[in-house]
Amino acid sequence: MTIASESADVDSATAVAELPARSTQNDAPQIVRIGLAERSYPIAIGTHLFSEAEAYASLPQGHCALIVTNTTVSPLYAGRLKSVLAASYSQVHRVVLPDGEAHKTWQTLNLIFDALLQHGCDRNTVLFALGGGVVGDMTGFAAASFMRGVPFVQVPTTLLAQVDSSVGGKTGINHPLGKNMIGAFHQPLLVVCDLDTLDTLPARELSAGLAEIIKYGPIYDMDFMAWLEAHIDALRVCDRVALAHAVRRSCEIKAAVVGADEREAGLRAILNFGHTFGHAIESGMGYGVWLHGEGVGAGMLMAAELSHRLGLVDAAFCARLRALVARAGLPVRAPVLDANDNAGRYLELMRVDKKAQAGEIRFVLIDGPGKAVLRTAPDALVREVVNTCCAPA
Amino acid sequence: MTIASESADVDSATAVAELPARSTQNDAPQIVRIGLAERSYPIAIGTHLFSEAEAYASLPQGHCALIVTNTTVSPLYAGRLKSVLAASYSQVHRVVLPDGEAHKTWQTLNLIFDALLQHGCDRNTVLFALGGGVVGDMTGFAAASFMRGVPFVQVPTTLLAQVDSSVGGKTGINHPLGKNMIGAFHQPLLVVCDLDTLDTLPARELSAGLAEIIKYGPIYDMDFMAWLEAHIDALRVCDRVALAHAVRRSCEIKAAVVGADEREAGLRAILNFGHTFGHAIESGMGYGVWLHGEGVGAGMLMAAELSHRLGLVDAAFCARLRALVARAGLPVRAPVLDANDNAGRYLELMRVDKKAQAGEIRFVLIDGPGKAVLRTAPDALVREVVNTCCAPA
Repeated sequence: MTIASESADVDSATAVAELPARSTQNDAPQIVRIGLAERSYPIAIGTHLFSEAEAYASLPQGHCALIVTNTTVSPLYAGRLKSVLAASYSQVHRVVLPDGEAHKTWQTLNLIFDALLQHGCDRNTVLFALGGGVVGDMTGFAAASFMRGVPFVQVPTTLLAQVDSSVGGKTGINHPLGKNMIGAFHQPLLVVCDLDTLDTLPARELSAGLAEIIKYGPIYDMDFMAWLEAHIDALRVCDRVALAHAVRRSCEIKAAVVGADEREAGLRAILNFGHTFGHAIESGMGYGVWLHGEGVGAGMLMAAELSHRLGLVDAAFCARLRALVARAGLPVRAPVLDANDNAGRYLELMRVDKKAQAGEIRFVLIDGPGKAVLRTAPDALVREVVNTCCAPA
Repeated sequence: MTIASESADVDSATAVAELPARSTQNDAPQIVRIGLAERSYPIAIGTHLFSEAEAYASLPQGHCALIVTNTTVSPLYAGRLKSVLAASYSQVHRVVLPDGEAHKTWQTLNLIFDALLQHGCDRNTVLFALGGGVVGDMTGFAAASFMRGVPFVQVPTTLLAQVDSSVGGKTGINHPLGKNMIGAFHQPLLVVCDLDTLDTLPARELSAGLAEIIKYGPIYDMDFMAWLEAHIDALRVCDRVALAHAVRRSCEIKAAVVGADEREAGLRAILNFGHTFGHAIESGMGYGVWLHGEGVGAGMLMAAELSHRLGLVDAAFCARLRALVARAGLPVRAPVLDANDNAGRYLELMRVDKKAQAGEIRFVLIDGPGKAVLRTAPDALVREVVNTCCAPA
């Protein structure tokens, strides 16, 4: 994978300083180019992107486009996206899914297939995922599977989707016995991150998105963590310049990691920092009760605590991360999943995680600030961590 | 793609003459090696392969294997496969699906996911598709999608699956609005064609398999068609030497075509000779009423008739193909799908086929014996062909 982003070095935390100030304003979007072995695609980050046909000009002209969105996002943006796509497609259809992680199921996915077939869409159809991570994951999997693969475009309207779903090509749905258990790797043709959409995002979801951004500090780039500590308040009020940098830098780091390991054989797993505990929280509470980013926020603190108990980081690091997570507006205390055997329930849920191998849980831990490591831990230690992190403040 | 098969030249119809006679007997299986850009895998063709652990020795040793089979095949062969796999996997589970094309649905597919998750199977699990094309397609799609991709092995027990599903990597399920509309390209690790399984195959299904074998003559290799005319009776009584050659040559031709076009951008479409009409028959009659191979048999005659009316082949070629299809035990008259507007119904069904583009039907036609071409045809001519081929004998 190669990543080209104007003059910025991907591995440098100074990229933002080199950006022309105007590019975070109303005019040309910033472009992060993701270069995978087989295909390359751009991520456009900017404002007013629903009224600029040029943002979509690189796409193959086709007969048919299908906008996949949800009941929340559709009334806000689907009409504008449809208008701008009418320049490129003779038919622009729309399918509106129910909103929420609880609907990330085969039944909902099938609504996309129904729409594609009812409209007579063929192999040259382009799907547009307009919404958050759930819409993006389902649209991507529908695109991967419809007629064994059609192209798709991500138009993420949540902060979490802008930083997390834009890079990596992971798509999928949930199974009652596990999250994201059914899916495919399928890269988009283009990702359009319109920062204006974050104005309509509930504060709770903005915070959830910040969790995935904060993640990149401990695992990869402590300069970025310091930048976040300085700009967390600006991010929470949707300052465009701060958002543009945070989204861009997150995409760059994720691209660098994914590029080294597209199929998640090793390194890529570090992106799951906080996710092993986080998935247990989401699943144990019932999908949708805790937002994904909230689970990741609390999960990162649990993983940091486990790292500390294994002697990998000091207590000061855990406290620093905890402070940033709290300032992002995220819960810092993990929920009790089972009043009788809470730690046992966490362990049970983590053992069915996709990343587990033969029932052995592989945790993403912090091996000194800015560096992640994948390893197992004794159950007794994990129990202590669960007990500590779920205790009342 | 490269294909290595002992000393035989893949593009030569004389391959069988070069085979040592013993290799179609009880001992070592014949191996056709399929070499795709990313991966290479062998097809083993022989007898007694359920009792030879060596046939599976090349597979990665793993913790968990899941045999996916159906209610018909399970009592015949699943126990023997399970025994032979026990040498390589500490857990060998089984899931038994209902039999038939009508069950090639999401609901049935989900039984595989349920089994995988209930047994705690992880990313190193290997799936074994033990059955016909439906089992193979569903197992392959489950393998492509479970945790975004796990390996699988094809153990086809029908003639059709041995020659058709062994090569190409197409997997998928049906949608109420179209066949194989949802799926993935996913290559197996290994294909094991045990010719002994054909002894338990109903004569009607053996004939259906012969349709896919006959197909390779008109589109690619008229010497093979001549060989089939000489050996069709031997094939119908499961002569092992004849079957081994027919399966091997079919796999070789398919591999040569797929290798030139893995993602079905162009050339690969010629493998769908007879399938555009055939899918209309299957779909119009209701999945499962006509076997896939029966639809292809009658469909080939319709496509040949259309080729003739377009001046591409003479009437003698059509008669010759019709005679071979009849001797294979296949219906030569296409069914009436709609008493009021039969030709209109055929056209309507063919327009929703995956191969249609913007509602335009692309037929695989014979452009002189041994050569296929992809082209459209005037509706009026297609109507004449439907009327002719559906007429009472």
